[in-house]
Amino acid sequence: MTKISSILIVAFITLMAFKSDDSLKMQDGRVPNTQMLHIGIVVKDIEAARDSWAQLLGLAKKPDITIAEGHEANPTQYRGAPTGAKAKLSFFQLENLRVELIEPIGDERSDWREFLEKTGGGVHHVAFEVKGMGETYVDSFKTNGYELAQHGGWETGEYGYFD
Amino acid sequence: MTKISSILIVAFITLMAFKSDDSLKMQDGRVPNTQMLHIGIVVKDIEAARDSWAQLLGLAKKPDITIAEGHEANPTQYRGAPTGAKAKLSFFQLENLRVELIEPIGDERSDWREFLEKTGGGVHHVAFEVKGMGETYVDSFKTNGYELAQHGGWETGEYGYFD
Repeated sequence: MTKISSILIVAFITLMAFKSDDSLKMQDGRVPNTQMLHIGIVVKDIEAARDSWAQLLGLAKKPDITIAEGHEANPTQYRGAPTGAKAKLSFFQLENLRVELIEPIGDERSDWREFLEKTGGGVHHVAFEVKGMGETYVDSFKTNGYELAQHGGWETGEYGYFD
Repeated sequence: MTKISSILIVAFITLMAFKSDDSLKMQDGRVPNTQMLHIGIVVKDIEAARDSWAQLLGLAKKPDITIAEGHEANPTQYRGAPTGAKAKLSFFQLENLRVELIEPIGDERSDWREFLEKTGGGVHHVAFEVKGMGETYVDSFKTNGYELAQHGGWETGEYGYFD
């Protein structure tokens, strides 16, 4: 999102379960609805960040930490090249959206790692749900001034980060 | 919020209308509820950022741009000292929260200006509503590891940014 800022990314998430729902189609670089799914925060130390957020939100039980890595159904690509990038993730469900903590791990290149090195950490992206992703979206976004930074997913969904 | 990241700030907003509502009291550095009011994004050029967000959200009408400056009821303080800092603001109402765009203007010091110089722009803070603010809160937050960076307000409300 270079027009807005040098460091904020918009993420579009596709959940396969919703793929047949036409109301989630994007057109002309617009999100299908203005429900923000989550904000993604890149951190140096996910255990410490999780402690701080659990305290701020007054949670007795901390959320789990999981590992995000490429899945054969949706291998991770960074700036057009395959990458074995991994990250630790932890999600906090707030009343109206989720907070995603992301700690990049390993040496492989990723947008998470680049952001951490550039900024020291902070809000990396805001996420909206869309239908499908694929070439059409990437092209539509490019036309509207967004560049695909990273793309990946899991068995039942995928994500794209757009500058 | 130094434990989480070097650049993310938590903002607490008090709206006077709710001051008598005890459910909005904070204790032990916890927010009274986990409804995130808005995310505040510091930008270099608010007109360009507003255009991008209006396009992304598919809005026909762009929101107004207003000027935030100190009010005699709640003069602005930055790192404990008075400041005449000003900023242009613009708000987008999404389905589940608001996006606040902030462009610092003028030469006076502020957390907005410092953030823009350090990062080039991006998400500066996430905001929660609390009851009152004052010394009790600032002390309570300090005990829990948060430092007051900036404080100010308008006629009917006030805000505090905590590292």
